[in-house]
Amino acid sequence: MFGKIILVKELEFYFDFASTYSYLSVMRVSSLVKEKNVRIVFKPILLGPIFKTMGWDTSPFHIYPAKGKYMWKDLNRRADKWGIPLVIPSVFPANGLFAARIAVLSSGEVWNSDFIKQVFCAQFQENKDISSEDTLRSILQRLNVLGIDSILANSKSDANKEALRNETEKARVLGIFGAPSFIYKEELFWGDDRLEDALDWVETHD
Amino acid sequence: MFGKIILVKELEFYFDFASTYSYLSVMRVSSLVKEKNVRIVFKPILLGPIFKTMGWDTSPFHIYPAKGKYMWKDLNRRADKWGIPLVIPSVFPANGLFAARIAVLSSGEVWNSDFIKQVFCAQFQENKDISSEDTLRSILQRLNVLGIDSILANSKSDANKEALRNETEKARVLGIFGAPSFIYKEELFWGDDRLEDALDWVETHD
Repeated sequence: MFGKIILVKELEFYFDFASTYSYLSVMRVSSLVKEKNVRIVFKPILLGPIFKTMGWDTSPFHIYPAKGKYMWKDLNRRADKWGIPLVIPSVFPANGLFAARIAVLSSGEVWNSDFIKQVFCAQFQENKDISSEDTLRSILQRLNVLGIDSILANSKSDANKEALRNETEKARVLGIFGAPSFIYKEELFWGDDRLEDALDWVETHD
Repeated sequence: MFGKIILVKELEFYFDFASTYSYLSVMRVSSLVKEKNVRIVFKPILLGPIFKTMGWDTSPFHIYPAKGKYMWKDLNRRADKWGIPLVIPSVFPANGLFAARIAVLSSGEVWNSDFIKQVFCAQFQENKDISSEDTLRSILQRLNVLGIDSILANSKSDANKEALRNETEKARVLGIFGAPSFIYKEELFWGDDRLEDALDWVETHD
């Protein structure tokens, strides 16, 4: 007799470390997928190059101050609603390049998703500078990661820089223009407020 | 003995007739407020002048094609989810100026909210040209409105044009940068996906 074969479906979760609503989704997603047959595949990207193709040289929340003011208010309200701690970072948008390179390099490692979550928490709960090697090193240490020095060095290799650029460009080609974005078999969902819809979609589509 | 005094709270609902997500909210709001102690106050505005202050000379869904493509997909998905009929209009964004002027002029009339809903339905269910006098006249006729000729004429009076401009400028000053937007005592909510949050806020705040 054969056992039951359960096919685990994968939802791609595109994020930028500086993205405020990505923080909310990162904090919410693990309890939302619990007991669902869905695995989250984190995809670090850089919104900067994507925004550049849209004519923006910084966050739209700076370019359009009314939108920015509203975003912080909305973010606070949403964080309150779900009981997610939130400290407004003193620098926005953060420079998430170094952290994104480490996240790309470690995409196959068991500690990858914890690292991603910890970087977001450092930024949005402790107001830490996530571009600093000290911050990133201490997160890796706390996760008991082995070979931290070589990880930090390898994250800056040409091949790994290229890998992050490629992920970003692939995301743009898939239609991504903001974060967080979720993709299941080319079906795109944008925004923390579409996370539940994306998960429902995965469950109801092959 | 005194009877119980029930204070009806008012939620302001800012919309532009060309706004796709305003259509969804207009279709959803009446059943959401049923049995709640909340009255919806419709506030027609023009996004055009507000977008102009943001440097946009047309809909951001045209200026940023990836956003536009996604919006139609998302709109379809959301309409499906709630069983709201949706026909993609052949012209977008529609010219909602004439309809908005009638909506401002008739803000005190009992048929005002039905008129607003019917204009949205004409656009997003029947692909009608909502800038045409024929379309608007036939909606008013269907609603058994009296004095249609003078309504159509008065909507174009200098005083009424000015009234719509004032409503739009007041909305901008309140921080509105898109539609639909909901305001309860200066607390701003943007987007159809915040309609439930806005109603919860009204219920839980004095």
